[in-house]
Amino acid sequence: MFDHVRDRVRVVEVGPRDGLQNEKKLVSTQDKEAFVQLLIQAGFHSIELTSFVKASAIPQMADAQELFSLFSSETKAQFPCLVPNMKGFETARDLGVKEIALFTASSESFNQKNIRASIEESLLRMEAVIQEAKKEGIRIRGYVSTAFYCPYEGKTSTKKLIELSEWFLERGIYEVSIGDTIGAAGPKEVWNVLEEMKQSIPVDRLAMHFHDTRGMAIANILTSLEQGIRVFDSSAGGLGGCPYAKGATGNVASEDLIYLLDKLGMEHGIKMEALIEASTFILKCIGKESTSKVYQTFSGDLDYV
Amino acid sequence: MFDHVRDRVRVVEVGPRDGLQNEKKLVSTQDKEAFVQLLIQAGFHSIELTSFVKASAIPQMADAQELFSLFSSETKAQFPCLVPNMKGFETARDLGVKEIALFTASSESFNQKNIRASIEESLLRMEAVIQEAKKEGIRIRGYVSTAFYCPYEGKTSTKKLIELSEWFLERGIYEVSIGDTIGAAGPKEVWNVLEEMKQSIPVDRLAMHFHDTRGMAIANILTSLEQGIRVFDSSAGGLGGCPYAKGATGNVASEDLIYLLDKLGMEHGIKMEALIEASTFILKCIGKESTSKVYQTFSGDLDYV
Repeated sequence: MFDHVRDRVRVVEVGPRDGLQNEKKLVSTQDKEAFVQLLIQAGFHSIELTSFVKASAIPQMADAQELFSLFSSETKAQFPCLVPNMKGFETARDLGVKEIALFTASSESFNQKNIRASIEESLLRMEAVIQEAKKEGIRIRGYVSTAFYCPYEGKTSTKKLIELSEWFLERGIYEVSIGDTIGAAGPKEVWNVLEEMKQSIPVDRLAMHFHDTRGMAIANILTSLEQGIRVFDSSAGGLGGCPYAKGATGNVASEDLIYLLDKLGMEHGIKMEALIEASTFILKCIGKESTSKVYQTFSGDLDYV
Repeated sequence: MFDHVRDRVRVVEVGPRDGLQNEKKLVSTQDKEAFVQLLIQAGFHSIELTSFVKASAIPQMADAQELFSLFSSETKAQFPCLVPNMKGFETARDLGVKEIALFTASSESFNQKNIRASIEESLLRMEAVIQEAKKEGIRIRGYVSTAFYCPYEGKTSTKKLIELSEWFLERGIYEVSIGDTIGAAGPKEVWNVLEEMKQSIPVDRLAMHFHDTRGMAIANILTSLEQGIRVFDSSAGGLGGCPYAKGATGNVASEDLIYLLDKLGMEHGIKMEALIEASTFILKCIGKESTSKVYQTFSGDLDYV
């Protein structure tokens, strides 16, 4: 173990989108902007800013256009934005979004509840968006949700997961993020699924997206690192959850991820103190406490060891 | 990784002692007995029951004699009890305690604050107790605290840790528990320290005792498993902390440990539902919430996957 000492890890901060979308208390656009500025100051170069969905579906994302427009052109390039369909894509494109994230899930039931489409229908929708995005030179990131477990179907098919990941990569998507949507995977499952995926997929095209519902996220990340994964999604303070996935609590906290990487001696470019400042700000906005033990420890007066 | 699928892990439940000793709200002897009975029903065969210390030093342990006396002779054999000095030992021996736990630390400053003795003095004290205990056929478990970090000195000496562990084993102590007292170790440090320890110490004589202060405990346990460790200390619901170690929050929760072992397919003999019942009971007694995400998830209405 631990042969990867000097490797660099890329962290995709998903707090502004995945972290906030499930929060009932609406955060003002101004506060979101301030949060994102703090994240940029903390060193993140990839921040999932928002989602171009119907306001009625996810009210927290209703200010997507306004929020995106607040940033400079250079900064905007660092913001992947979620796009559920052609309408969302067109809005994003017209605003000058440089990177979009598309998503499907390896479970039929979850897809139905989440986007009211079968897996097959979701691919058709995405196919059309991909073609348009390519014309514009817009970068595309892919998500496959319920990669290990579905809240409705239980254990999901790794075969289907691989099929969907390959579908993305064959279409020139630069990276597929593998989501443990309800945070139910354990390290051995992560090891085995990645072992299988790596048979046909280069590991540097994969990212892992863990939720920490059952406290296994850091052990799962450690296992993923051992399998060669170098990109992880996380959210400041451990914000998050999914309205369509019972029991899905927050994303793994960026603080926990960064602390693990520090402990392993791996590069990441994020400043912990500034990250905690960003989390403190957004937690105050939504009136919640962080579930991250790293946040709890270092937002107090303890030395950073 | 994960070649240890069918191995059995022994879990030492330290909730009644390490978990409660730092709680200001005194738990009645009756409630402690009920808690321990629930732990026994959950399947634990090794429960650190109490500590024979001066009541003035740790008021929560003032009922050590009364508590121990409440159990049947057969049950008592499953209770290691902490013994800080000869006086505590004599009390324990006269009561019929079958197993004692002795402790020192690899940091001079911590030993001074914790037991007002240098490391050398602590060895002298323990030497005398060990000789007496052996005469009576009493089993002995050893602890080395601050195995990775000390709250006063920072990173501690692995050489000293090994020296102290060997000291115990040379004297016929059946097992040494290696304590990350302030919960500051990371997986790579755990890997490296164990790698060094294994040069001179058989891994089956070692147990790991993690605190989850910075959320790394489960990743550290996973790493220890990979290094061949098969005994872990944990406390129901993640109770705990140390009055002499700033920033030492609870032990790793037994729920988190058991869940990890289940996820790895390893044997342990603990029933999760009954464990959660025990934790719920004691948490109610002290008026606290569990910090364990596994507890939080499964004390709700979620299916166990």
